[in-house]
Amino acid sequence: MKFSCLKSELVQAIQIAGRSIASKPQTPILSGIYLHAEKDTLEIQATDYEIGVILHVEAEVEKSGEIVVSGRYFQEVVRTLPNEEVTVQYDSSTSIIKISSGKSTFTLLSMKADDFPKIRPMQEGNRFTINSAVLKELIRRTTFACATDETRPLFMGALLELEGSKVRMVATNSHRLSFDEGSIEDEIPKLSQYVIPKRILEEIQHILSGDVPEKVEVVCTRSEMGFSVHHIYITTRLIEGKYPEYRRAIPSEFSKRVTLSTSDFLSAVSRVGLIARSSEYNTIKLMFNMGEVHIYSDNPVVGKAEETMQAVIEGEDIEIAFNASYLIDVLKTINGDTFIMEMNDSLKPALVREPDNEDFLYVITPVRTRH
Amino acid sequence: MKFSCLKSELVQAIQIAGRSIASKPQTPILSGIYLHAEKDTLEIQATDYEIGVILHVEAEVEKSGEIVVSGRYFQEVVRTLPNEEVTVQYDSSTSIIKISSGKSTFTLLSMKADDFPKIRPMQEGNRFTINSAVLKELIRRTTFACATDETRPLFMGALLELEGSKVRMVATNSHRLSFDEGSIEDEIPKLSQYVIPKRILEEIQHILSGDVPEKVEVVCTRSEMGFSVHHIYITTRLIEGKYPEYRRAIPSEFSKRVTLSTSDFLSAVSRVGLIARSSEYNTIKLMFNMGEVHIYSDNPVVGKAEETMQAVIEGEDIEIAFNASYLIDVLKTINGDTFIMEMNDSLKPALVREPDNEDFLYVITPVRTRH
Repeated sequence: MKFSCLKSELVQAIQIAGRSIASKPQTPILSGIYLHAEKDTLEIQATDYEIGVILHVEAEVEKSGEIVVSGRYFQEVVRTLPNEEVTVQYDSSTSIIKISSGKSTFTLLSMKADDFPKIRPMQEGNRFTINSAVLKELIRRTTFACATDETRPLFMGALLELEGSKVRMVATNSHRLSFDEGSIEDEIPKLSQYVIPKRILEEIQHILSGDVPEKVEVVCTRSEMGFSVHHIYITTRLIEGKYPEYRRAIPSEFSKRVTLSTSDFLSAVSRVGLIARSSEYNTIKLMFNMGEVHIYSDNPVVGKAEETMQAVIEGEDIEIAFNASYLIDVLKTINGDTFIMEMNDSLKPALVREPDNEDFLYVITPVRTRH
Repeated sequence: MKFSCLKSELVQAIQIAGRSIASKPQTPILSGIYLHAEKDTLEIQATDYEIGVILHVEAEVEKSGEIVVSGRYFQEVVRTLPNEEVTVQYDSSTSIIKISSGKSTFTLLSMKADDFPKIRPMQEGNRFTINSAVLKELIRRTTFACATDETRPLFMGALLELEGSKVRMVATNSHRLSFDEGSIEDEIPKLSQYVIPKRILEEIQHILSGDVPEKVEVVCTRSEMGFSVHHIYITTRLIEGKYPEYRRAIPSEFSKRVTLSTSDFLSAVSRVGLIARSSEYNTIKLMFNMGEVHIYSDNPVVGKAEETMQAVIEGEDIEIAFNASYLIDVLKTINGDTFIMEMNDSLKPALVREPDNEDFLYVITPVRTRH
């Protein structure tokens, strides 16, 4: 195998591939990056069995072939090469990979291509196309709400629901739930649900970080999902099991509604939350009364914090307590200058949403406090 | 106690004070920041018994007094306050400190000022004045060479040597030694030596990070040293013991001299060092020969790296091996486009210096390799 390519393109591809390598691989071969040079393309693969990625880089291939190289060293070496042109050559008689650029030459030990669990793009399954801007927004608005503890594996992922031309994403840790809806370019005849690990959604968000909207092709089966965009194909195992009926957790009627300035409320909750942070439930209390919201927290080992700001209040006065982080998380995703919080009483779930957006909603369960 | 001051000035002062608080304080009072408001000044103190700092902030003092507040929470609270004007008030009947700014109010628990080990600026000792630019350069050029392991406590600090109007700083870990010399504004009659902990030198470097040169007043006794600059006084315990005769470690005659491009050699050594990094002694080899230096490393579990660059060589060919980090560290401090390396043979210490600078030198012991 022998090929030449541009350093900048190779660095970018290996960086994405590198993130699919487990920090503690189950077997040595999984610490490697698979290289396959053929025609005018270098194919790169990496996997940790849970997620896998295939990338393509334009290359001048002098001799086709395939090999596996240490992911860690290949990344570090390529990144530091002095020139923009890189030549990679595998010598089968010595089993050594030679990387050269300018006056620098590196040789790295190799692993056998046959030992690598090669990823084959999915052929069968539910197929749809989604705009990258829509997919990114679905991920941004929901994924933060996933559970981080492993007691309920389904909650460590987000639900992707397809119905007609609608796509929905839902994430919850059972104390708060985030829901967002968008459109796809296809018509899915039957309601389909998939639970995607949080980690892969973050990875896709990272890959789609450019500003230019693109089409993302998605294929899904019950156990696996594949995403294609540019020269990148990324695949993941899905989380197995039936996601709970999330609609039941979304209240539809409220007796109180308040409208608040997003940035002012976020700043105030962040400040007051400082004192709450080391307490057991990270609790801050809100008292809505007389056109103002009084925000306060109390931590016997630290002190107290309180702040007051204006609020448009419809309905009776209410005092309610929340985990400060659950409020901060959602406030950071709100797009507009103001947002709406709807409540019933201090024990029933509240709803956070945007004034002119029916697609997004966030349910947050209050913390019970002793008065 | 009650005072008002500017948030930005208070934040800056508490940030510096906060770095003198140990992450795991020996006693609860050492987790605190001491505040003393009197006349038109707020005095702030923090210490971990090894280093201590006193800072002054302009304040409008309504009622004088002193108190100790949790360093961690005071820092976080003040940093997030909404307005530039901050009012701090201590209520002795409730033992509570109230911090207010705009519509935010925080109350923090307090600790007794009497329990705080107050720092008193040193009155007696060797006194001299040094330009902050000179002190910063001495620290920058030597401190990196200190030992990090605790087997030789003296080597965990840098030697400060005063003689006449000269000031010298020396640091070593016994495998490499860095030396730099500058001038002070005073005349010290008798050679004096002090070993200053690396941590305090880094702290001083941080405090002196501004570009405008200033006068730093220094007072030293056998066990303690104090630095004053702006409104900051910082004091440290010195490391006890007699620093070895460092001059014996500096060779004065060499049979070979090479002149190299600083940036090219630094890049090449960094690249080739990648392969050396996980080996036992982080060894890279240099072969000077025919107007070129050949840089290479070899790691049986990873691979090899090699690179060639031009060198002006005076004297016979030589092959010599070094710890790559020891070379990289010093190359990062070199000011000019080229530097000089002087050697005798592959077992004797080499010297790194700058072409037109007699004040700085760096001794580096080669690594023995089997050929």
